[in-house]
Amino acid sequence: MPTEPESPAREAALAMAPAQFRALGHALVDRIADMMAALPQRPVSHGETPAEVRALVGDGPLPRAGTDPAALLDGAATLLFEHSLRSGHPRFHGYISASPAPIGVLAELLAAALNANVALWHAAPLASEIEAQTVRWLAELVGYPAGCGGLLTSGGTLANLVALLAARRAVRPAVREQGLRAVAPLAVYASTQTHAWLHKAVDIAGLGLQAVRRIPTDAEQRLDVGALAASIEADLAAGVQPLMAVGTAGTVSTGAIDPLPAMAALCRRHGLWFHVDGAYGAPAACLGDAAPADLPGLREADSLALDPHKWLYAPIEAGCVLVRDPRHLLDAFSQRPPYYGAPRDDEGVNFHELGPQNTRGFRALKVWLALRMAGREGYRQMIGDDIALARRLRERVQATPRLEAGPGGLSIATLRYRPDPREAHDEAALDALNRRLLERLQHDGRAWLGPAVVDGRFWLRACIVNFGTGAAEVDALPALVLELGDALSAGA
Amino acid sequence: MPTEPESPAREAALAMAPAQFRALGHALVDRIADMMAALPQRPVSHGETPAEVRALVGDGPLPRAGTDPAALLDGAATLLFEHSLRSGHPRFHGYISASPAPIGVLAELLAAALNANVALWHAAPLASEIEAQTVRWLAELVGYPAGCGGLLTSGGTLANLVALLAARRAVRPAVREQGLRAVAPLAVYASTQTHAWLHKAVDIAGLGLQAVRRIPTDAEQRLDVGALAASIEADLAAGVQPLMAVGTAGTVSTGAIDPLPAMAALCRRHGLWFHVDGAYGAPAACLGDAAPADLPGLREADSLALDPHKWLYAPIEAGCVLVRDPRHLLDAFSQRPPYYGAPRDDEGVNFHELGPQNTRGFRALKVWLALRMAGREGYRQMIGDDIALARRLRERVQATPRLEAGPGGLSIATLRYRPDPREAHDEAALDALNRRLLERLQHDGRAWLGPAVVDGRFWLRACIVNFGTGAAEVDALPALVLELGDALSAGA
Ligand SMILES: Cc1ncc(COP(=O)(O)O)c(C=O)c1O
Ligand SMILES: Cc1ncc(COP(=O)(O)O)c(C=O)c1O
Repeated sequence: MPTEPESPAREAALAMAPAQFRALGHALVDRIADMMAALPQRPVSHGETPAEVRALVGDGPLPRAGTDPAALLDGAATLLFEHSLRSGHPRFHGYISASPAPIGVLAELLAAALNANVALWHAAPLASEIEAQTVRWLAELVGYPAGCGGLLTSGGTLANLVALLAARRAVRPAVREQGLRAVAPLAVYASTQTHAWLHKAVDIAGLGLQAVRRIPTDAEQRLDVGALAASIEADLAAGVQPLMAVGTAGTVSTGAIDPLPAMAALCRRHGLWFHVDGAYGAPAACLGDAAPADLPGLREADSLALDPHKWLYAPIEAGCVLVRDPRHLLDAFSQRPPYYGAPRDDEGVNFHELGPQNTRGFRALKVWLALRMAGREGYRQMIGDDIALARRLRERVQATPRLEAGPGGLSIATLRYRPDPREAHDEAALDALNRRLLERLQHDGRAWLGPAVVDGRFWLRACIVNFGTGAAEVDALPALVLELGDALSAGA
Repeated sequence: MPTEPESPAREAALAMAPAQFRALGHALVDRIADMMAALPQRPVSHGETPAEVRALVGDGPLPRAGTDPAALLDGAATLLFEHSLRSGHPRFHGYISASPAPIGVLAELLAAALNANVALWHAAPLASEIEAQTVRWLAELVGYPAGCGGLLTSGGTLANLVALLAARRAVRPAVREQGLRAVAPLAVYASTQTHAWLHKAVDIAGLGLQAVRRIPTDAEQRLDVGALAASIEADLAAGVQPLMAVGTAGTVSTGAIDPLPAMAALCRRHGLWFHVDGAYGAPAACLGDAAPADLPGLREADSLALDPHKWLYAPIEAGCVLVRDPRHLLDAFSQRPPYYGAPRDDEGVNFHELGPQNTRGFRALKVWLALRMAGREGYRQMIGDDIALARRLRERVQATPRLEAGPGGLSIATLRYRPDPREAHDEAALDALNRRLLERLQHDGRAWLGPAVVDGRFWLRACIVNFGTGAAEVDALPALVLELGDALSAGA
């Protein structure tokens, strides 16, 4: 065993004097500010291969001796700024990945310095209260009923998983002690357009992927409520217990919004847990009358997922789950281990009792500060502008020869290159062409789009959750796609 | 719907010019450096009630209009610095909560600015490679076999959950499609000293808490291998399928290390998945010959959890799970949704396929930079010093009248106040007295300890995972506990 320290003074390899922290912090802030200023002039991506990137990191062993932190931070910033996909770039429209709010970036610094563990109220009193207020404000922003419970999560997948587990506990309380073998088979209903969180969550929860009923959609990619009703009835007739129906408010591929009010009514009729995955689209409910018609129906859900790290522009990670009745989270997740001591009379909320994590970071700070910086009005403006830009993109695409606009709602627009629009194309060849086009675009670096598969066909997809994107960026996009498409179809 | 923006220029409520980011960033870094410098002179805690803290936050609605970010950040820093438990304080020894490495704090700033989504290799090429290297280095640090797989998680609970799910998939592949109803009942074995992650994870996975076999421990709080063998055999005879045995490397209450090599041998004999929860204690394996005898046995585990946000001094959140055979994670978590496109030939690792999250932050950066700043030797020194300080505390307690030293290993020491050590005490009264003593201490603010319950008795517990703690802080602790205990037993 190591020898006992002789003197009270301790030398620690990770210690940093406040003056050095100040100097390194200033230098890093300067590097980031420079990066932000240069961003629009830099390519969005670099198109490097895994082998090329791996070579930058190397495969060396863990260093034996330490290294000067100034050199480390400076080196890391240089390397990362030069070899990352620039997701905050004005011409980045891939995935559903927001431009991170600078105040959120600074909030992460403050949260890390505090190192609050928002698990037990007594370990993080103020941070716990701030998370509770953030949850209330998020509910208010999207019109979810006051008095709900909720917590922040690592993202939409965990938020949706928490909702599934809360439903499982509420609908079949015996599962907690006795497990799934003790109850009738359960079924979960969701449209074919549902994000893959569903399969992950159902698998994690032990239900088995066969428990998923993939309900077809209409021509606008919205869940078919008649088919949902038929599926529920078939299960009931077969002795299967309907557990939960999922409505998506903003599908990942085309931003479609399921018929939430009709689904809510059907769930009420069957006593079924109604969950809404608003990971992407829920924040658009703040538009009020200007929101898509069915979106306010999210207020009828028993649980709702929404992601601050998507359309509220929080830096990754920040998801959120809300439940109408706060008790459902406590029922599903509370354990009272002896080493945390007995509950106290004056106890505040212990967030570790409301979700899967024990130790929990102070994610709420970045969300709370951004909500206060922008206010409700600021968010309405930003979200409304993102939607308007997606519509503008659709119009520009429609006006561009050899480009075709596909389905898209909220702030998503899909498009593809179609060499001769008057001709009937071989659809498979068109898919292949557009796949290659997207790969070229992603390597090109002038803009970044993602893929979407709609009704089996391949599209390029722009999702604008980026307050740095303006009309100029959107207007330039069709010509770029056309240029790459023409080059491809000319055999270049 | 909102109107279309007229001009290319866009005003966004969360936008911040690089110059303003620079100014606010410098100011915040200064505030944090000041806080670090003042830390030792400030109380560790404030003893405020939830009502008092809630009043600071208020219960107002979401603000309609925005607020100047400079005022927001400054106000938040002031509020948080004054009303938080100071977990980085040299006299903070509560929970298993590390002093956050300053380089890790700065790494969080850089990671947030990049906003890398370490889900898909193509979304975060360099960050993915850095996470992969961090995983390799963590394995190397603790002596886990090269060639293992792994990923960073939000903490120890999720790391252990991932291991349980990997085991479930490996042992009973049918569960993924058909759910738990399709297979024989499963059992999980762990000592009574296991952290509450176990109950959360078993519940989440749908096994039911009845699947947990709570194996008794010996006098040193180590799992009794004979009892484990008997439990496994009883289950086999009853048609229950043993799924996984858990050895803890550093129990949460007393830092005990289960007999890992003997458990590994038993698991091999029965073809049982052997998981080691080293969330707290695994890093001490870097001490080599100076490590506790059974600790190197973690190398025999099929999966291992260890938490950089505990004894590697990373700011919260950072857990890690390692699996001997990388395929087990992919088997358990990979989904291939169409909207991410087909796998490419040149693909790097997609971390969303290895764990429960989809979107994933760049937690690896703070761990990677701290490993490089300290190097293996720096970590050996810090961890060895923490252990030596806990031993020093035990010795000081033993030398203090009316204090009793309880069980403790690694960097944990337990103690209690015992008014008259020669007298036989009413144990329940002693528990109650020490409970009140701990509450007083936590309100007092001069130091912070947590509770431990050992063999049903209540102890005060110091866990030193704090490179800011030196001999002076440890030496002052017994007198403080004595002062509060004497005051309490004098009826004050
Ligand atoms: C509709 C929808 N739900 C859920 C998710 C999953 O969220 P996360 O990636 O934060 O886990 C996404 C992610 O894109 C999504 O678009
Ligand atoms: C031994 C042990 N395992 C697991 C955990 C859970 O880790 P986390 O709090 O990061 O979820 C802890 C937390 O203290 C622990 O001490």
